[in-house]
Amino acid sequence: MTTEPTHDLAHLGHHGLFTPDPEGTLHYFVDLLGMDVVAQDGEATYLRAYGDYETWSLKVIGSDQAGPAWVSWRATSPQALHRRIDWLEAHGHAGRWTPRDRGIGPSYQFTDPDGHVFRLYYDTQRYSAPEGQRPAIPTGFQRYAGRGANVRRLDHVNLLARDVPACRKFWEEGFGLRTYEIVRSADGGDESAAWMSSSIQGHELIYTREHTSANGRLHHFAYVVDSREEVLRAAEIFADARIRIEAGPSRHTAIQGFYLYTREPGGNRVEVAHGGYLVFAPDSEPYIWNPKEWKGKPGWGAPLPPEFHVYGTPDTVR
Amino acid sequence: MTTEPTHDLAHLGHHGLFTPDPEGTLHYFVDLLGMDVVAQDGEATYLRAYGDYETWSLKVIGSDQAGPAWVSWRATSPQALHRRIDWLEAHGHAGRWTPRDRGIGPSYQFTDPDGHVFRLYYDTQRYSAPEGQRPAIPTGFQRYAGRGANVRRLDHVNLLARDVPACRKFWEEGFGLRTYEIVRSADGGDESAAWMSSSIQGHELIYTREHTSANGRLHHFAYVVDSREEVLRAAEIFADARIRIEAGPSRHTAIQGFYLYTREPGGNRVEVAHGGYLVFAPDSEPYIWNPKEWKGKPGWGAPLPPEFHVYGTPDTVR
Amino acid sequence: MTTEPTHDLAHLGHHGLFTPDPEGTLHYFVDLLGMDVVAQDGEATYLRAYGDYETWSLKVIGSDQAGPAWVSWRATSPQALHRRIDWLEAHGHAGRWTPRDRGIGPSYQFTDPDGHVFRLYYDTQRYSAPEGQRPAIPTGFQRYAGRGANVRRLDHVNLLARDVPACRKFWEEGFGLRTYEIVRSADGGDESAAWMSSSIQGHELIYTREHTSANGRLHHFAYVVDSREEVLRAAEIFADARIRIEAGPSRHTAIQGFYLYTREPGGNRVEVAHGGYLVFAPDSEPYIWNPKEWKGKPGWGAPLPPEFHVYGTPDTVR
Amino acid sequence: MTTEPTHDLAHLGHHGLFTPDPEGTLHYFVDLLGMDVVAQDGEATYLRAYGDYETWSLKVIGSDQAGPAWVSWRATSPQALHRRIDWLEAHGHAGRWTPRDRGIGPSYQFTDPDGHVFRLYYDTQRYSAPEGQRPAIPTGFQRYAGRGANVRRLDHVNLLARDVPACRKFWEEGFGLRTYEIVRSADGGDESAAWMSSSIQGHELIYTREHTSANGRLHHFAYVVDSREEVLRAAEIFADARIRIEAGPSRHTAIQGFYLYTREPGGNRVEVAHGGYLVFAPDSEPYIWNPKEWKGKPGWGAPLPPEFHVYGTPDTVR
Repeated sequence: MTTEPTHDLAHLGHHGLFTPDPEGTLHYFVDLLGMDVVAQDGEATYLRAYGDYETWSLKVIGSDQAGPAWVSWRATSPQALHRRIDWLEAHGHAGRWTPRDRGIGPSYQFTDPDGHVFRLYYDTQRYSAPEGQRPAIPTGFQRYAGRGANVRRLDHVNLLARDVPACRKFWEEGFGLRTYEIVRSADGGDESAAWMSSSIQGHELIYTREHTSANGRLHHFAYVVDSREEVLRAAEIFADARIRIEAGPSRHTAIQGFYLYTREPGGNRVEVAHGGYLVFAPDSEPYIWNPKEWKGKPGWGAPLPPEFHVYGTPDTVR
Repeated sequence: MTTEPTHDLAHLGHHGLFTPDPEGTLHYFVDLLGMDVVAQDGEATYLRAYGDYETWSLKVIGSDQAGPAWVSWRATSPQALHRRIDWLEAHGHAGRWTPRDRGIGPSYQFTDPDGHVFRLYYDTQRYSAPEGQRPAIPTGFQRYAGRGANVRRLDHVNLLARDVPACRKFWEEGFGLRTYEIVRSADGGDESAAWMSSSIQGHELIYTREHTSANGRLHHFAYVVDSREEVLRAAEIFADARIRIEAGPSRHTAIQGFYLYTREPGGNRVEVAHGGYLVFAPDSEPYIWNPKEWKGKPGWGAPLPPEFHVYGTPDTVR
Repeated sequence: MTTEPTHDLAHLGHHGLFTPDPEGTLHYFVDLLGMDVVAQDGEATYLRAYGDYETWSLKVIGSDQAGPAWVSWRATSPQALHRRIDWLEAHGHAGRWTPRDRGIGPSYQFTDPDGHVFRLYYDTQRYSAPEGQRPAIPTGFQRYAGRGANVRRLDHVNLLARDVPACRKFWEEGFGLRTYEIVRSADGGDESAAWMSSSIQGHELIYTREHTSANGRLHHFAYVVDSREEVLRAAEIFADARIRIEAGPSRHTAIQGFYLYTREPGGNRVEVAHGGYLVFAPDSEPYIWNPKEWKGKPGWGAPLPPEFHVYGTPDTVR
Repeated sequence: MTTEPTHDLAHLGHHGLFTPDPEGTLHYFVDLLGMDVVAQDGEATYLRAYGDYETWSLKVIGSDQAGPAWVSWRATSPQALHRRIDWLEAHGHAGRWTPRDRGIGPSYQFTDPDGHVFRLYYDTQRYSAPEGQRPAIPTGFQRYAGRGANVRRLDHVNLLARDVPACRKFWEEGFGLRTYEIVRSADGGDESAAWMSSSIQGHELIYTREHTSANGRLHHFAYVVDSREEVLRAAEIFADARIRIEAGPSRHTAIQGFYLYTREPGGNRVEVAHGGYLVFAPDSEPYIWNPKEWKGKPGWGAPLPPEFHVYGTPDTVR
């Protein structure tokens, strides 16, 4: 008999981002990506995208260096939240509770095997747009302003890890994430990337190989727009704002999403993304790429520059 | 404590369609929508879209009149399949098994409260494209040929029902479908439409009010394309093929999808669709439209012609 | 022997627009359409779109009622300018010179047979973007900011006229405009619309039938965006900004352009447009629609509301 | 006083293409690009795109090697045709008449300074689609079938030349083509590319530096689709048809068009293109890139592979 999947994680939630250049970072997220500031609190600024149902989804935090502060998941129910905490505590990954933060949480904070900080929560606050900011159709959350790249919401996060399979198994076994693609050698000894999701979307959490001795680093956060055409528009916006484009617009082989990579002025890599397949089969097995087939780069799409595979934040290897 | 959702249905599966004009219907699905014939068997033809992971997804069946032969769901596991059958049999909806059909099934056949035929199955056959039809990227299922409207897969089905809330509750209670939008009067006595889904997609199964005394009728099947631009292209293709366009291209208020409605030569209404929101919140409540707000048609989008609300197949009211 | 066309008009130039609500009108053009203010002078504001090579292209003028102040054409050379003025003066259409206005002109002002004010000029000033507003690629004119509907430039103007053929012939005979489509009855006695251009673009100047006793009225100005997808985005922006959408997004039969009509808060109708065919054949004859074929509305596209055919500015018939 | 431009060339017309693999070449143009065969005559096949107003626009000719047979221009009038022939004969470029070919011509054949064969004609035959192939809107030429990349028409041609400025001046002085961009060193001694047009479109005829001792070679023919989204679709189609993609989809710096390059099975390079700016100013000067600025590649867009700059047909340097 098939083992049945668990459904305890609903979606990626709020995340925190460190930046040594808060002003530049906010200019990038607000004026170029099109997100809105919902609150400010000392060194921290709370932002939301127009498609977020929760009050906020990104906390930009002034710091001495760039990097991820945390990534979070919303659990599907209070019971699901507690089941996952029980699993963490039973498997040597006990964390601690962090208090409610501007309507969201409390959150249970812990680390993945590479040391990235994660938070798990259920309680949240739905966004209620102020008068003048409500959308015409009430099933939306906020007026569509069409500013800059106009990202709709966070799509996925890519983390660097020295031991990709250890991280992958942590989420598969502990949280029921499904893995849709893996790059690894025939003997399984060399696994360099894995694409995972809590839903039918092809990727929410990606691990790719950390090539340095650092740990807990961010490869990129990806925000989604509604069409490939909007990814192309974003390239125009970034180019004219003199934000260097690291890669794209082009198409990834894995998950087949359309991408554009820049770095926000604080140094963190950010993707503007559209597409990627949906996985409807409840019993699909991950597609295993062997390194040779992977490097053959079937299909279409521009080559990625070498720095794409090594740069992360904190940029510890400069 | 919150009741936790069940996840026993994975997605809409194969469906059957009756047509009094098999030749015209096949021309429509193959040459205009861009689907492929995978097998023929007397009066029945098996078709697939290029994004289907299963071998086939549509069985066109010659008959004396148009209409839906069946709609199906694939269960998430063998256990899930049996849990749902147990529920059906325990609640007075017992059906019967139908045999395996060209690699898919056996399926358990039953009816919803309005008399529409449904099938439930788990066993299936993944499509293996013949040499020359394989996509360059092996996570795809079939070469992208770009013929006609080039639909990727079935998106949702809309069924007419005399008692919309009865049908809605049948799926909510028996199968754990989530309802994302409802149109009904303040006193709840007049519910005219409901949009339901087994996943984060805004709609898979829709019920709208049957205005005649008929039962078990189809409003439309919707096939999805990759962009709104492709819906516009489809309009060009249909117009020049002299297929009358009933409505669109435009945008629906409910679920916010972009639509185009035609009728295949057999008479069944078919939508070419793109978009519609995704529902990430695991605890979102359905949005309840009152009829006045609904008729106010907030947002943008062309008005639907009167026939849109009354025509269905079989076209029993001519 | 074929008569050879003249090429004395290069393109539609700057235009002036009266508004009883300058603040509302500027909000519309700047925040929603995405144009920029380049100068202010009492009741007049000078605007440009990011694709304009000239310094400004629209002068919004506070007034007691909405309506067109003038439409202009840039001549292809000083000689061409004088040839056209000679023609005007020789044919009883003498006008007068208006002085240089913020870098553009002097312009020769005259009226078409319906009394619309036109200006003809050659001298102009190329836009030089200030530091920080320059595009990355120097063949552009201005940074691509992607604000709101983000219109690129004026595309065409539609004027109401009591005698459409008289206006059409005025431009054909006096200026060498080419007419690409005409709607008229078989006996030629009833001509209700004509689409004209100085270039390969399907329409720059349109005349449609004035149904009132007024003269010199505006039907609409149309601004162009880069894709149909951007017309759809504009609909979202207008709807959420609570600007009523009069028609579209949909596709016109004439010239086959994709359209969206709203009225700026001052009352003037404005189109956000994309597409329309190009006419390469130097010897193409206008396509003559008879009224019956025209009303049959071949192809696809939503019906236009009745007000579309009667409303104009000044709104003299209220 | 400004010199006034001539307008004797209307647009690029029919062209001939040599191929050593007629079957493969026809598969490419018909099944992948979506063009139609209108006639066959021994080793020659006549093709048209759905947006061509003339009967045919491409003659594929079996030969021992790939390469351009000829490029043509349609003159704006019979007088214009004879004026240009007079110029050719007066300036030492006399050619000869070639007979009418399936409704088009006679054509006057001559060579540019690099030895590329050109034809000039006025007489032509408008396409009359057979019953069942007529578009719904009668201003179109042919039913929109949406097959494969579905190119609308020829957009531009790029020819390799050992002496780019000589070729550029030939067209400027002899035919009134306008040059919109040039790449050349500060001292003018090194001119490596020029983009020219007979209309407001940014490019119809391009010359780029020939790096071998060959002459008369083709860099590429470009066919246009209606949106950047369709260029991306074309990449999918080519990739899955196992046609190698040489470059793109991405965006060019010059003229700013969106591109995708493949080679048809006979070896000729073909672009699927969309966009590129329009030049409205009648007095715009060419933008002169110095090689350093040019290599700095401002804006966005993938780098071109080295072979892009050297490969041409005939492929004499293998």
